[in-house]
Amino acid sequence: MRAAILERPGLDNLRIKEVPEPAPGPGEVLVRLRAASLNYRDTLTVVGGYGSRQKQERLIPLADGAGEVAALGPGSTHWKLGDRVIGCLFPDWLGGPITEEKIKRQLGGSVDGCACEFRVFPEHGLVRTPEHLSDGEAATVPCAALTAWSAIASQGHIGPGDTVLTQGSGGVSLFALQFARLAGASVIATSSTSGRLARLEALGARHLINYRGEPQWGRAARTLTAGRGVDHVVEVGGGGTLEQSIRAVRVGGTISMIGVLSQAKPEFNLALVVMQNIRLQGVTVGSRDQFEHMVSAIATHQLRPVIDRSFPLSELRQAIEYVAAGRHIGKVCIEI
Amino acid sequence: MRAAILERPGLDNLRIKEVPEPAPGPGEVLVRLRAASLNYRDTLTVVGGYGSRQKQERLIPLADGAGEVAALGPGSTHWKLGDRVIGCLFPDWLGGPITEEKIKRQLGGSVDGCACEFRVFPEHGLVRTPEHLSDGEAATVPCAALTAWSAIASQGHIGPGDTVLTQGSGGVSLFALQFARLAGASVIATSSTSGRLARLEALGARHLINYRGEPQWGRAARTLTAGRGVDHVVEVGGGGTLEQSIRAVRVGGTISMIGVLSQAKPEFNLALVVMQNIRLQGVTVGSRDQFEHMVSAIATHQLRPVIDRSFPLSELRQAIEYVAAGRHIGKVCIEI
Amino acid sequence: MRAAILERPGLDNLRIKEVPEPAPGPGEVLVRLRAASLNYRDTLTVVGGYGSRQKQERLIPLADGAGEVAALGPGSTHWKLGDRVIGCLFPDWLGGPITEEKIKRQLGGSVDGCACEFRVFPEHGLVRTPEHLSDGEAATVPCAALTAWSAIASQGHIGPGDTVLTQGSGGVSLFALQFARLAGASVIATSSTSGRLARLEALGARHLINYRGEPQWGRAARTLTAGRGVDHVVEVGGGGTLEQSIRAVRVGGTISMIGVLSQAKPEFNLALVVMQNIRLQGVTVGSRDQFEHMVSAIATHQLRPVIDRSFPLSELRQAIEYVAAGRHIGKVCIEI
Amino acid sequence: MRAAILERPGLDNLRIKEVPEPAPGPGEVLVRLRAASLNYRDTLTVVGGYGSRQKQERLIPLADGAGEVAALGPGSTHWKLGDRVIGCLFPDWLGGPITEEKIKRQLGGSVDGCACEFRVFPEHGLVRTPEHLSDGEAATVPCAALTAWSAIASQGHIGPGDTVLTQGSGGVSLFALQFARLAGASVIATSSTSGRLARLEALGARHLINYRGEPQWGRAARTLTAGRGVDHVVEVGGGGTLEQSIRAVRVGGTISMIGVLSQAKPEFNLALVVMQNIRLQGVTVGSRDQFEHMVSAIATHQLRPVIDRSFPLSELRQAIEYVAAGRHIGKVCIEI
Repeated sequence: MRAAILERPGLDNLRIKEVPEPAPGPGEVLVRLRAASLNYRDTLTVVGGYGSRQKQERLIPLADGAGEVAALGPGSTHWKLGDRVIGCLFPDWLGGPITEEKIKRQLGGSVDGCACEFRVFPEHGLVRTPEHLSDGEAATVPCAALTAWSAIASQGHIGPGDTVLTQGSGGVSLFALQFARLAGASVIATSSTSGRLARLEALGARHLINYRGEPQWGRAARTLTAGRGVDHVVEVGGGGTLEQSIRAVRVGGTISMIGVLSQAKPEFNLALVVMQNIRLQGVTVGSRDQFEHMVSAIATHQLRPVIDRSFPLSELRQAIEYVAAGRHIGKVCIEI
Repeated sequence: MRAAILERPGLDNLRIKEVPEPAPGPGEVLVRLRAASLNYRDTLTVVGGYGSRQKQERLIPLADGAGEVAALGPGSTHWKLGDRVIGCLFPDWLGGPITEEKIKRQLGGSVDGCACEFRVFPEHGLVRTPEHLSDGEAATVPCAALTAWSAIASQGHIGPGDTVLTQGSGGVSLFALQFARLAGASVIATSSTSGRLARLEALGARHLINYRGEPQWGRAARTLTAGRGVDHVVEVGGGGTLEQSIRAVRVGGTISMIGVLSQAKPEFNLALVVMQNIRLQGVTVGSRDQFEHMVSAIATHQLRPVIDRSFPLSELRQAIEYVAAGRHIGKVCIEI
Repeated sequence: MRAAILERPGLDNLRIKEVPEPAPGPGEVLVRLRAASLNYRDTLTVVGGYGSRQKQERLIPLADGAGEVAALGPGSTHWKLGDRVIGCLFPDWLGGPITEEKIKRQLGGSVDGCACEFRVFPEHGLVRTPEHLSDGEAATVPCAALTAWSAIASQGHIGPGDTVLTQGSGGVSLFALQFARLAGASVIATSSTSGRLARLEALGARHLINYRGEPQWGRAARTLTAGRGVDHVVEVGGGGTLEQSIRAVRVGGTISMIGVLSQAKPEFNLALVVMQNIRLQGVTVGSRDQFEHMVSAIATHQLRPVIDRSFPLSELRQAIEYVAAGRHIGKVCIEI
Repeated sequence: MRAAILERPGLDNLRIKEVPEPAPGPGEVLVRLRAASLNYRDTLTVVGGYGSRQKQERLIPLADGAGEVAALGPGSTHWKLGDRVIGCLFPDWLGGPITEEKIKRQLGGSVDGCACEFRVFPEHGLVRTPEHLSDGEAATVPCAALTAWSAIASQGHIGPGDTVLTQGSGGVSLFALQFARLAGASVIATSSTSGRLARLEALGARHLINYRGEPQWGRAARTLTAGRGVDHVVEVGGGGTLEQSIRAVRVGGTISMIGVLSQAKPEFNLALVVMQNIRLQGVTVGSRDQFEHMVSAIATHQLRPVIDRSFPLSELRQAIEYVAAGRHIGKVCIEI
């Protein structure tokens, strides 16, 4: 089969190669992957960051993949040949509270990922693809959508009457906007261009803030909520935006901490966090149980992920560079 | 002012009388009530049931009322004259866990209610009327809507991908349907006539069950959820329907117990509750904090309550008989 | 190996037999069981009740067992030979919300149990035995202790300042008493003889009620809490005691519904559940994650289960009759 | 009456003066204060920080006070003359989620505090003093103990089997240690001298870390939990200790953010917060409902606050300097 192999860290060391097709063992299934998708973390993984394998080891990158069941290992009974499936980024986090052990295996990080034609999964490490989604659309959800779902639904219990602030137009932010709308919340979306803001409005954002024009956008968000502050901020900007997020959120509100896009050591006003009872909640994707709940919501509402562009597997390197440049809206896919 | 006075229990003892207008004390406000609404509990209260006052005492009935602030007591600063407001059924349950003390005062039950032109409220026992609602619409929410909100939002954390079952077309059930839809849930609605079912479908129900044709409607609900069962049942039928609700709900699901419409000592299969980890959750309206959260959701979504019919205050007795007959859809109002 | 085999429902059909020793498959381990324990459900299972296998099938009964790892299946890496382990009653409920699928396999019910010398477990269906416990003590916890833990800790969030009421001196009730005390709660314990009440006091109960002398013990419990009612009732009596439990619990309190000891169709005052915001919560043992949390609490506090009596495997029938008679205090064990 | 008056910011401007005794209005009570206690925030308030009044205004400082009811305002029915009571730091936060409005009035900050002989409280802004506590002991709990209670009990749901890390020997940390022990948790306590560590051990700490000897005490805490990390850190050190707290806490754990003792703009590893699903939770004292729950736990367990030293009101200035020096263990009180 064809696979993208990172021989050692460095984008120059990424090769499309022919490698032996794996075989499913007991309790496992073989999946013919049809699509993968990229996340910002993949741009770090290929240079050896973000908890990826030891430097000397080869890695098949990409956490996200979808396809159909192509073979069943001995004793595998949960899936049938041809079932359309999506892989779980953490195949061993089935449910319940997160533990170190449950997240040890991480696709495209500590174990091989989905930039290949065939991959073996434990049968419990897959969820069923909603019928209305293409494989490309399905491949966008394991990391970005589930992270947004964890923030908005599992941890945030966001519902009608709540207000959520999203930042920019990356994959997690768009899913957060979409899920917040499904849950009945109002969304304040920030971005840097009127074109992107128009796109965010079309997806259901009620209020828009151009943070180029409003560097103190935290105050602007407060004004839009009659001075009260938003209930929930989905913070993807890393240290660079946290100060404004703290300004934007209400007394007793929550800031979901996602991704590591910019400076890793943020400066922020600790006294405000304490005096305003603010919660900063790290979000680490989610469990298989949460994934299934999310997929059920996606199916019910026939929600469609926003895809910016697709690349063939042979152009994976260009795709990674495209994501690293950060000008996409929504998700970038790989066709396999 | 004019008020409906129940001299002693019994619908025959209900009189519209001229009584002195009350005056607000410190921390209180006087409200000119413009509308009230009826709940099933009012049909019990007028005959001396449902925790209403001692038999010898006079009572102004009706828990639900809305109007505008007409006078401010000494030291009252929270409201301005003319502010449109809705009364809290439990004026002392401001927030936090329910306690016996917080629910001791109950409008139209242990203390006078809203079937009158003027009523004094503690300034903390009111919420602001959403702009898009008429006074009649506003008067429908303190009991029925807040009960549905507590079941669906506060206690149920219902969200996208969940399935809720509602029973019939009374006030609580219609609000539950509307709130569940706002929160992104799918609704299975039961009723006894095709006309009512069509109305429920128009309000957003995804699946309909005519329980006349399907006395084993619990099983029908299970079939509609691919055998899994619904996540949440809003049980308003009392003992008569609980057995089917237990059949309808999924393993680990919740049944909100509301109202006392039929037999008070229900028969149900206790072993199923235990073995399927089911929660039966009594719902006792809600706090002022929950009320404000609900009103914010109603305003955001410009949600409109379903009103069956309005009566003038002078026909309160007929209105009560109309509600007791149980053929209405949604809420029955009183114009004051 | 020796095993207790129920050829078909009926205690007369229980035989100790020599059967082939099972072998662990991939991802499985073989456990040499050293002890088992009995639960009331086992007395139902042997007569064909409580969701046990189809009538024509043979069954090895008993949900609870403990021993040590005797062999590892291919690819099993989580355990080492000789590790002391306890089996999970639901080997597939690893964590997260309960689902029908997770509890399909149930030891000593839908699949073979622990009344035998060797049993194969999936490696994820075991927890490590705390060092201070004997195998007999360890064998008492998978069903009774985990049920009590779910009620008190996982669902009840019982803590310092709370009051818990327990009923009688069966296994679940004693564990509930012990866990409630660990969590800082006050316990009101009921029983029918002064001898048993003295035992409950020695285990840490603060208040004692002899329900023979106080058939209206719900009112007595209310009096002991200055009229407020208890926060939590661990209800094991089935329909016969529910009415009093509802009287005992405070406005907004919880009644954990456990077991099916007496009449399955209870009579109780539904209106009180609704008007007092009471939660009736079915408890279905718990997940592996909860089990591990409980075992960690047991180890920290060097908690010792209360064992009434042990029988050799050859006297399993007498042991079951002894449990059915209901005169034991705490748990009854089987030595294997 | 005598009162400590801060004429304008600056410790030099603190005077003990004779001022008129206040009179309770409707719904209020007059309390004869017998004791107050100091918190670190008071050392900031007297120099004009921590949200205290505008610089030009006079302020009676100190958030914490206890005494007995000396007079009832018109219509006050909840308390009787002579009732022993403790004041709520936020007299308007009765229960439910925190809001900006509920915490606007803050004793010894935005409104006058307890460094005086008489103070008027709204009747809902007091809780009953547990019988076993002296007034001095009672005066230690409104800020420090309730903050610790919110962290451990209300937000943390800490229970048996959990591990909590506390920092140093200040008031909040000692209460956190005591409450964590009541709730059945194991405590790892850090401090800088063996004398203090011995004191912490006597209060029930299971493990001790001298952070002078172990500047990487986060790693030491991890080792003490078999590499897993603690469930909960009560972080009182501000920015200076956060990095180590993040090292100490387990995947999915919580760090309660309390106080602003050192640098306000902390540096910490944001990527770890995200990748390990860590929650940083600001703690802002608590509501009256939480206060009552805490007091009930204190009473049940006859818990005694740790008092370092008491000063007479006339030596308030010295007491503030003593607290600012930071060498006390537990609480510092004022006798009035």
